[in-house]
Amino acid sequence: MSVTAPKGFVAAGIRAGIKANGNPDLALVHNVGPAYASAAVFTSNRIQAAPVQWSRTVDVGSFRAVVLNSGGANACTGEEGYADARRMAELTATAVGCDPTDVAVCSTGLIGVRLPMPVLESGIPAAAQALSATGGAEAATAVMTTDTVSKQSVARHADGWTIGGMAKGAGMLAPGLATMLVVVTTDARIEPTVLDRALRAATRLTFDRVDSDGCMSTNDTVIVLANGASDTTPEEGEFTDLLTGVCHDLAQQLLSDAEGSSHDIAVTVTNAATEEDAVKVGRSITASNLFKCAIFGRDPNWGRVLSALGTTDAAYDPDEVDVSFNGVMVCRGGAIGEDRALVDLTPRQVDVLVDLHAGDRTATVWTNDLTYDYVKENAEYSS
Amino acid sequence: MSVTAPKGFVAAGIRAGIKANGNPDLALVHNVGPAYASAAVFTSNRIQAAPVQWSRTVDVGSFRAVVLNSGGANACTGEEGYADARRMAELTATAVGCDPTDVAVCSTGLIGVRLPMPVLESGIPAAAQALSATGGAEAATAVMTTDTVSKQSVARHADGWTIGGMAKGAGMLAPGLATMLVVVTTDARIEPTVLDRALRAATRLTFDRVDSDGCMSTNDTVIVLANGASDTTPEEGEFTDLLTGVCHDLAQQLLSDAEGSSHDIAVTVTNAATEEDAVKVGRSITASNLFKCAIFGRDPNWGRVLSALGTTDAAYDPDEVDVSFNGVMVCRGGAIGEDRALVDLTPRQVDVLVDLHAGDRTATVWTNDLTYDYVKENAEYSS
Repeated sequence: MSVTAPKGFVAAGIRAGIKANGNPDLALVHNVGPAYASAAVFTSNRIQAAPVQWSRTVDVGSFRAVVLNSGGANACTGEEGYADARRMAELTATAVGCDPTDVAVCSTGLIGVRLPMPVLESGIPAAAQALSATGGAEAATAVMTTDTVSKQSVARHADGWTIGGMAKGAGMLAPGLATMLVVVTTDARIEPTVLDRALRAATRLTFDRVDSDGCMSTNDTVIVLANGASDTTPEEGEFTDLLTGVCHDLAQQLLSDAEGSSHDIAVTVTNAATEEDAVKVGRSITASNLFKCAIFGRDPNWGRVLSALGTTDAAYDPDEVDVSFNGVMVCRGGAIGEDRALVDLTPRQVDVLVDLHAGDRTATVWTNDLTYDYVKENAEYSS
Repeated sequence: MSVTAPKGFVAAGIRAGIKANGNPDLALVHNVGPAYASAAVFTSNRIQAAPVQWSRTVDVGSFRAVVLNSGGANACTGEEGYADARRMAELTATAVGCDPTDVAVCSTGLIGVRLPMPVLESGIPAAAQALSATGGAEAATAVMTTDTVSKQSVARHADGWTIGGMAKGAGMLAPGLATMLVVVTTDARIEPTVLDRALRAATRLTFDRVDSDGCMSTNDTVIVLANGASDTTPEEGEFTDLLTGVCHDLAQQLLSDAEGSSHDIAVTVTNAATEEDAVKVGRSITASNLFKCAIFGRDPNWGRVLSALGTTDAAYDPDEVDVSFNGVMVCRGGAIGEDRALVDLTPRQVDVLVDLHAGDRTATVWTNDLTYDYVKENAEYSS
């Protein structure tokens, strides 16, 4: 179901022939109304793919459709690539009956390769023909690249409105290729400005705090579409909470399927002076290859946590920092704590707790371990 | 020879019994005069090992001896660890006949484990007994941890003065454990302030521009000792040049022996607006796991270069950036250039050239690829 779980949305996913292996590679999501509100956030990478350049400059607040392809990122493809992205919007607009500027475009795959436009000329009308109120699952499948499972999430509110979403990739910071793409739909009645505020609040605490491998994509896009088909206007806080829940669920699904990972790691930083400090310290740890290799080796090597947070300018006294792995405080006061042999890192889920003793703010950043399979997938990717 | 190549230096490296496997693990370098000038640079990590805390607060300008151990970093070991580092200086001072504050201490190995002090109580006097004018090679061997070869360098000036050096580790940003340690000696007659200036100039262009895996150690130390035994006072520029040469040689040896690496990679950024911009862009690329996996896979995946430099705030126009791999310009003007099949990445040396077309400044940053063996060594390191 996913994006077709809310009323008034149809979707499709087809095998257009973009991918050489014949897997599904083209998806459409269409908002059939009655209202057409939308919001979007895009990668902060300065090298932005053509579809990102297109989507961010057209009507971000009133998208009616999203066309997505896997099998090619359409990034670093010059003016021809931008013309290709615009053409995808035009083909979609013609097929579903709206203006091209009401269509968002998302692409994912290898950077620096043109899309096979003849395939899209016939594929987009075919996808539009396949649109249905039960097409959410097919759409989620058609955007997969190195994903091993499709990612979908649905949350229903007691008042009768629903949020659905689909995602591909493995983090805000893409693990193996451009990119993370997310489409969320809702039949709540909600204004574009409120939708934008809610989306930014939700992504700040979810997709923005996932760091799979420290690499930022050229194509990352998160789009939410709202049509009011439930005839209910939710309270903004309730809507933001449910949207955050769907984004969190999708983010965790991305991480669990991150290339080659064998552990899901949550790094929680407590008692920081500011939330910014907590996030900064968390990111310094989740960005450390040494830390991530140690987790792969089931080694509670807290020295690698300390040496990572030592590179930040967050407020803390090095002699007061405590570090726990799965509940065992192996570092107390910046020095040796409990016996590291007490820590069990065989489960997939790993919780690292860093207590800075410098304030009362907390944040969690999520990542995964660095494994042979990560290296293998990314060494062999484009060849 | 290395640190004993210049006149007036003796050194030793012995099997003290710190390492469980019985390999050499304790080294001494002693300046026997007539002068005693020194300079040092230390890790900028805020979590600093006890030996770094000791060395940086005593007489950095007049060290007469350096005691170094492998088999334990003595980092995050609290007040007891600091007392252990001080005790190592006291034992060395007694053995060679100087003040404890004239002794620099360096340690390398696992973080968060106390050193076996009874072993050092007998080992340091034994190492002092073994000091000799031909002991440089043994000293260089005794500081090895996951290094597969010892690193030494010697440069002789026509005017009769010499610089020698030894190093362990694999980069300013340590690859697998705390840490990079470097000791450089010279029989040139040189004042501490000039020596300090020369050392900072040399490290800025060498050790500071090596980024093996983005992880910064708690123990990194580079020390230079000068004794004037050649009775020659070099011109500062000539001394700085020769010192930079020795540091460059040692830095390249560290990189070539970096854990698990199969390629040495030089990323040169040209036509940047400032040298800072050139370094920033270079570092963004050498820090990218995706880029480093691609090189391991012999894949000239220039999209990963673009997506890395897109995360910086350096001055450039995304549509004007050129990228070459081993002389083949695979990306021209931010878009598709020469056929990537023309690039041969089978040699160990890989040269990546990024032309920003934004000014006239250039910088090179060095790294290595990310391989299965890197993951293996760092997953299994402390267990």
